Amino acid sequence: MSAMGDEAGDLLALSPNDVVARVRFDAAGLVPAVAQDSTSRQVLMLAWMNEEALRATVTTRRATYFSRSRQSLWVKGETSGNSQQVAQLRVDCDGDAVLLLVDQQGPACHTGVESCFDVGGVDVR
Amino acid sequence: MSAMGDEAGDLLALSPNDVVARVRFDAAGLVPAVAQDSTSRQVLMLAWMNEEALRATVTTRRATYFSRSRQSLWVKGETSGNSQQVAQLRVDCDGDAVLLLVDQQGPACHTGVESCFDVGGVDVR
Repeated sequence: MSAMGDEAGDLLALSPNDVVARVRFDAAGLVPAVAQDSTSRQVLMLAWMNEEALRATVTTRRATYFSRSRQSLWVKGETSGNSQQVAQLRVDCDGDAVLLLVDQQGPACHTGVESCFDVGGVDVR
Repeated sequence: MSAMGDEAGDLLALSPNDVVARVRFDAAGLVPAVAQDSTSRQVLMLAWMNEEALRATVTTRRATYFSRSRQSLWVKGETSGNSQQVAQLRVDCDGDAVLLLVDQQGPACHTGVESCFDVGGVDVR
């Protein structure tokens, strides 16, 4: 029931309201969202969503995050072209984390590598 | 260079001090940590680490988190037996997220399913 490729936990067919109802945002109104490549299964990045970003992701099926540094919505790839088409959207058992399975265009990381987790931390950039 | 199974981004051979230096903890002293099954590549859960939990994870190679609800360290599987042996530890490009590749004993989720992302959110428990 939980094998990779299984769609039982996929909430993408729900309405934005129904998806939002399953999520518990933190005190800042945010929830962490993990993007995983739907084909390679590589974990690409972790970013944050507010309610508006989550609604936009469900509606457009393009991964949309909230930039904490810029304090604004951020459609992934809007400027770089490295967008994420969302194949599945999952929420964890406590409702306080989101998992996106995505079709990633180009590299996910702003450093030019496939995954942000290939870089090795803040001191090695 | 970033293919699954590649170990270039794995920091597990570093000292706890060197790993901690690559991480930026948030205002509460925490960093989100994603656990991914090293074999199936399924994303199992998202939890949180403080510096002590991160050091313990590097030292023991057993995934150790910080429980925000209990405000204490939490060695995954200590009571349930469903522990996580850490095969790789990665940090993202901004140093504000951790990725563990783990050998998961039993189900990762307290609901008894393999992944916390199989459950579908807070309203369906």
